[in-house]
Amino acid sequence: MRHDSLADKNCAVARTWSIIGERWTMLILREFFRGEHRFDPIARKLGLGRSVLTDRLRMLVDEGILERRHYDSVPDRLDYHLTNKGEDLYTLLVAVIEWGDKWVVDEPPVTLTHKKCGHQPHLSLHCEHCETELTRRDIHAEFAPDAW
Amino acid sequence: MRHDSLADKNCAVARTWSIIGERWTMLILREFFRGEHRFDPIARKLGLGRSVLTDRLRMLVDEGILERRHYDSVPDRLDYHLTNKGEDLYTLLVAVIEWGDKWVVDEPPVTLTHKKCGHQPHLSLHCEHCETELTRRDIHAEFAPDAW
Repeated sequence: MRHDSLADKNCAVARTWSIIGERWTMLILREFFRGEHRFDPIARKLGLGRSVLTDRLRMLVDEGILERRHYDSVPDRLDYHLTNKGEDLYTLLVAVIEWGDKWVVDEPPVTLTHKKCGHQPHLSLHCEHCETELTRRDIHAEFAPDAW
Repeated sequence: MRHDSLADKNCAVARTWSIIGERWTMLILREFFRGEHRFDPIARKLGLGRSVLTDRLRMLVDEGILERRHYDSVPDRLDYHLTNKGEDLYTLLVAVIEWGDKWVVDEPPVTLTHKKCGHQPHLSLHCEHCETELTRRDIHAEFAPDAW
């Protein structure tokens, strides 16, 4: 099966992965979450060829995750910004960081803190009804008849 | 830069992505979280060639995310199980599902519920000190001097 064909599956993981599971995409998005907006610094930082980065940015714009903005008119220059759909990938990025911090790096290279109190937040799978944090064992997954 | 070289970066995102950002890897892990353990059903379900699946499973075992177990001795047969490191990717998987449900599928193909009460849990970035849910705007990111 082609990787592209994941976009047609009735599965949130497959469709999401058809977008962000492409090589480099999550690293490019990381640069935006760090406050970068322009082509050249991202290409330099990631050591990416122009054609690969052009391709990925176009895909992220087509998917509505980034939007192009004019920041100068003479000469005409464009940069890129996260849309609401893009901003919403922050939770996923933090999930990647938390797993990586725990399992694949020695000392966390980035520390996230709550601005207001200075304490470190963490992602929790939370049941609002019971006001408790859940683990995988607490969860039942119900698949729709047409789920992939 | 080669994608493989991400594994050497002092960045939790880069190192995690050098593992799970490979095509198909997250979809293969999804099958394990659904309770599958064997090569043939996963290959069939994903429509994957044997060499690709063999390669990915070997990588996931090398990374300590899956472990091989003998489930029959005559003939000798192996299946695969998530280790604790693998189980810990559940939060990341739920982050993918939540984003996908919100932005890329029409009706959620999978519904997660809290077994005990039947309500739907959700991922929240939580400050235990303040007992509040945070958004990206509430977070300060501090980079170590040698962070990539």
